[in-house]
Amino acid sequence: MGVVVQNIERADPAVVARLGACGVATVHEAQGRKGLLASYMRPIYRGARSAASAVTISAPPGDNWMLHVAIEQVRDGDILVLAPTSPCEDGYFGDLLATSAMARGCRGLIIDAGVRDVADLTQMGFPVWSKAIFAQGTVKETLGSVNVPVVCAGALVNPGDVIVADDDGVCVVARAEAEEVATKAEARVAAEEEKRQRLAAGELGLDIYKMRERLAEKGLKYI
Amino acid sequence: MGVVVQNIERADPAVVARLGACGVATVHEAQGRKGLLASYMRPIYRGARSAASAVTISAPPGDNWMLHVAIEQVRDGDILVLAPTSPCEDGYFGDLLATSAMARGCRGLIIDAGVRDVADLTQMGFPVWSKAIFAQGTVKETLGSVNVPVVCAGALVNPGDVIVADDDGVCVVARAEAEEVATKAEARVAAEEEKRQRLAAGELGLDIYKMRERLAEKGLKYI
Amino acid sequence: MGVVVQNIERADPAVVARLGACGVATVHEAQGRKGLLASYMRPIYRGARSAASAVTISAPPGDNWMLHVAIEQVRDGDILVLAPTSPCEDGYFGDLLATSAMARGCRGLIIDAGVRDVADLTQMGFPVWSKAIFAQGTVKETLGSVNVPVVCAGALVNPGDVIVADDDGVCVVARAEAEEVATKAEARVAAEEEKRQRLAAGELGLDIYKMRERLAEKGLKYI
Amino acid sequence: MGVVVQNIERADPAVVARLGACGVATVHEAQGRKGLLASYMRPIYRGARSAASAVTISAPPGDNWMLHVAIEQVRDGDILVLAPTSPCEDGYFGDLLATSAMARGCRGLIIDAGVRDVADLTQMGFPVWSKAIFAQGTVKETLGSVNVPVVCAGALVNPGDVIVADDDGVCVVARAEAEEVATKAEARVAAEEEKRQRLAAGELGLDIYKMRERLAEKGLKYI
Amino acid sequence: MGVVVQNIERADPAVVARLGACGVATVHEAQGRKGLLASYMRPIYRGARSAASAVTISAPPGDNWMLHVAIEQVRDGDILVLAPTSPCEDGYFGDLLATSAMARGCRGLIIDAGVRDVADLTQMGFPVWSKAIFAQGTVKETLGSVNVPVVCAGALVNPGDVIVADDDGVCVVARAEAEEVATKAEARVAAEEEKRQRLAAGELGLDIYKMRERLAEKGLKYI
Amino acid sequence: MGVVVQNIERADPAVVARLGACGVATVHEAQGRKGLLASYMRPIYRGARSAASAVTISAPPGDNWMLHVAIEQVRDGDILVLAPTSPCEDGYFGDLLATSAMARGCRGLIIDAGVRDVADLTQMGFPVWSKAIFAQGTVKETLGSVNVPVVCAGALVNPGDVIVADDDGVCVVARAEAEEVATKAEARVAAEEEKRQRLAAGELGLDIYKMRERLAEKGLKYI
Repeated sequence: MGVVVQNIERADPAVVARLGACGVATVHEAQGRKGLLASYMRPIYRGARSAASAVTISAPPGDNWMLHVAIEQVRDGDILVLAPTSPCEDGYFGDLLATSAMARGCRGLIIDAGVRDVADLTQMGFPVWSKAIFAQGTVKETLGSVNVPVVCAGALVNPGDVIVADDDGVCVVARAEAEEVATKAEARVAAEEEKRQRLAAGELGLDIYKMRERLAEKGLKYI
Repeated sequence: MGVVVQNIERADPAVVARLGACGVATVHEAQGRKGLLASYMRPIYRGARSAASAVTISAPPGDNWMLHVAIEQVRDGDILVLAPTSPCEDGYFGDLLATSAMARGCRGLIIDAGVRDVADLTQMGFPVWSKAIFAQGTVKETLGSVNVPVVCAGALVNPGDVIVADDDGVCVVARAEAEEVATKAEARVAAEEEKRQRLAAGELGLDIYKMRERLAEKGLKYI
Repeated sequence: MGVVVQNIERADPAVVARLGACGVATVHEAQGRKGLLASYMRPIYRGARSAASAVTISAPPGDNWMLHVAIEQVRDGDILVLAPTSPCEDGYFGDLLATSAMARGCRGLIIDAGVRDVADLTQMGFPVWSKAIFAQGTVKETLGSVNVPVVCAGALVNPGDVIVADDDGVCVVARAEAEEVATKAEARVAAEEEKRQRLAAGELGLDIYKMRERLAEKGLKYI
Repeated sequence: MGVVVQNIERADPAVVARLGACGVATVHEAQGRKGLLASYMRPIYRGARSAASAVTISAPPGDNWMLHVAIEQVRDGDILVLAPTSPCEDGYFGDLLATSAMARGCRGLIIDAGVRDVADLTQMGFPVWSKAIFAQGTVKETLGSVNVPVVCAGALVNPGDVIVADDDGVCVVARAEAEEVATKAEARVAAEEEKRQRLAAGELGLDIYKMRERLAEKGLKYI
Repeated sequence: MGVVVQNIERADPAVVARLGACGVATVHEAQGRKGLLASYMRPIYRGARSAASAVTISAPPGDNWMLHVAIEQVRDGDILVLAPTSPCEDGYFGDLLATSAMARGCRGLIIDAGVRDVADLTQMGFPVWSKAIFAQGTVKETLGSVNVPVVCAGALVNPGDVIVADDDGVCVVARAEAEEVATKAEARVAAEEEKRQRLAAGELGLDIYKMRERLAEKGLKYI
Repeated sequence: MGVVVQNIERADPAVVARLGACGVATVHEAQGRKGLLASYMRPIYRGARSAASAVTISAPPGDNWMLHVAIEQVRDGDILVLAPTSPCEDGYFGDLLATSAMARGCRGLIIDAGVRDVADLTQMGFPVWSKAIFAQGTVKETLGSVNVPVVCAGALVNPGDVIVADDDGVCVVARAEAEEVATKAEARVAAEEEKRQRLAAGELGLDIYKMRERLAEKGLKYI
């Protein structure tokens, strides 16, 4: 505790953008169905989307001091990822911190705790995915760390990892795998388009994916 | 497990429509306050409404194979009702399956688990009531059954039962009782209209429903 | 149980309005970070706001009789606050009760239980903050009390206390403290405006709030 | 609502005993992995075991009147199964009702709600599987039904079905299938004994169940 | 925040003992079914019982400083009641604090948060009712208050109120009402004894409580 | 997915034993208050204790195939740590697997899912810390991995890390830090002993830890 790592490597912004264009569900599939944060992490408004490089924060419960420290480390294209050291739903973050973060190019906040001023944040277009919306204030008494590995809502996030977030939730992609995942995700998008057209025309997945034989082998009975 | 019932009886579409017009709260009351699914079953977008005949699915946790099987059984005016065999919030269903289901006239999905691609589903106008929004992918390895009785979110649903769903949640009406319930529900709607006008004019429920005497008998004291 | 207190003191409407203009997060901070109801109390539609004087209801689980009794006690500028005597998520309140309450000038409902007809309530603009949206009907068999102190969603609410509610949740302010809290809250709003401008201009909270020295004293290390 | 079915068919006591001897996990497997009540249904003391014929109760939230009605219907070898009509954790049942139930040969209680006087019940050896331990009292104002089909903790229970309950939870077996399930369960117990000995001797499940080839086919890599 | 009230009035120890002898369920009934803490408050070991006078603590999340302050205020026959100012399950209390509290005659701890060292506490016979068992450590940075009114697990507790706790949970009795409640509770215990004997002899509650006529009036049908 | 790492480094058994002797709460403190698994991870019986080297398992929901694979990798002094790839409470593990694991020297199981046959496991003295007790059976259809890093109940566990578990829950210590943490933990135990004696003698923590001055500086008021 009490460490701020200042020089982290970030993913290539072009790769981040490609991942963002594919969306959470596709990226998660493309990297082998891993990296999803827990389903309780919900956007504060519908239609929120973000893809960015993680600046991570490990913070004590009910203490938002490290958010101020972290914002100094934010560069354009980063997203804040806060994991409390024990379960907490206090409102660590509100419109003033969002104003400061936006001024530095921050693309949003992923927080396994609470957020407040959500009407203002919505109007500002500052996206947040959180465990709770809760006005409870926090103190500034105890150190945490910035840009260390954290487990956020069940997923390991290293500083500089890519965060993709949309209405389906939040997914983390390891920086070293980002380009490969982006390529696979784009391939999935392309492949899905052809299937979507066939399905829309009334063709069945049972036939497109050739499932009938295997279902029969497993013993499926039609009665 | 491993059974697909192909010929199920469905409710009269006209009756289904009448129930849908009354809405969940009224239909639930009209049938004696039964048939509601648990309150955690929420629509993926506000304003979603559906009334349709149930095609039921019993599926293993994290395995969406039976959804492909079930879609072949869907006819125009049906709704899919999926109950996992143990608690699960994985994303069994997304935009490709929705495209396929819509092509067959499916009116929506009730799923005691997760759903994904909710931004797409919202844009497509395909309504889903689910326990979670979660991008987690599923496998296709283990059989389940289609059109067998299931307990979904605490309510027994038989294939061909009528599902009514709106912003208040989801209600199931037994096929055999559907017409009678529709008639009672419509009577409630009519009766409520007169009361709404009296209440809007400032008359009190205490007087309209003649509650004062019984409250006094029970011992209510005004101080 | 079984008591209706008819003459309660209410807060000054001008003070109530001042608190409402400041919003939940600011009011909560201004009174020393107390008074918040639990984070599970959510508005049935986004953008709902209310500030009003509490008419409290203690009601048995699954029994909404006392709501009818309470509505008679409502004056223009009041808000209903219902706490069940044991945990319950039944739908105590719907469009008919809302019609009646609105006719008497009621500004909304805070209910540590369920509500139904939310599509209608949204259209009517009648704001509700609740623990659940659930169509489950209730009975009228057992007495409760009106205008007695209640614990609602973890917060003590006395009749005549000020309720402030918005997208961030619900906060209660003791009637006797309302004016002082309003003054402090307005001071916070004013002070925040200057900070917002500095933060928007790129100045850091670390500098504005002079945190660097204290962080160093606590042992924060930059690496 | 408001119905008491007096003449129900019960399962053969010998079959019930055979199922009880096999235990919940084995019975659940023997009937195709169905019939389990939700995992939140826990025994009030460890080591509780019961196998009996269900007398079902559908009761309003916070109202235990029907328990008195149901006890009259209990015969030696029965177990009470109570499902509230909406979620509730009130203490419907305590030592007086247990005394009465035991006097009639009742073998326990399965309740998707709360129970109280658990120290007394433990001393009496009256087993209860419940969702909560909670002293909250209930009223006697509203009718429910006895010996109608209920959904209890996610499982459909018909009157006369066999309930098997132990430290692993609760399982229901349809009366008509009880004998067949008992036979299959006993076969599983016998088969397991041989495997237990081989496993205890250090042989691996991979070899006993011949899993290695199929794992390799699926692509498992040892590194 | 930041206040320690040193001179509080306590209930008569004889009355406290009488309430403790009656137990949680009976006391709760005797005072009109109020005063129960939420059902998630569970004893760390079975058979724990306590009846004592409350020393209350309002503490920040994850900060146990005030426990040290509160222990100085404890007299023989007191019990600590801690409510965090926002939801938290950290382990505020362990064997060292228990050693200190026991040395001052403390009869236990009621904490709407976590506790640790439960094996030691069990061996010491120091009873705790808590929301969680969790080893997570806490800091000593932020003030709270001692002997102010708190809402603990949904119940209002004033310093000097009587706490009764056993395997059924926790109940608070207002100091001013303690003697009257004790008398009523003892009357209930006496009355129950006669009923217990009649029920044990096989008489039905339906007859003892003369319920048959009222059930028939309400429309109960035997079929 | 689909990888089994066979040669992992394990911690020194002597160090593991030293950590185990200190217990979860002390070890967690000694390593800077990190490494705790979520509080919902509870032992299936009280008094369970284990300290061992982790063999990790990443498994699909409802599929326990990899447990069979993992048991082959177990050496004397290891403990199994299973994390499902999405939330699940199925009963992955029962008495047969425990028999097999014990035959290979396994010291227990940490599972962020369900376990069954808990009466047998208790009798066998095979300790399990789990999220649920649930008899629900699982399939053997989909690969997972063994001895890869997993996030289990919110904590990162690498193969070969030290697991310490007791009635307070579960803590993970990184293999590389194990010796240093053991030394610090033992120092804490020694230091606590002296404090325990002073506290037992009635000395106050306020004095032993010299808190009075700092409390006064922060503004604590005694009234």
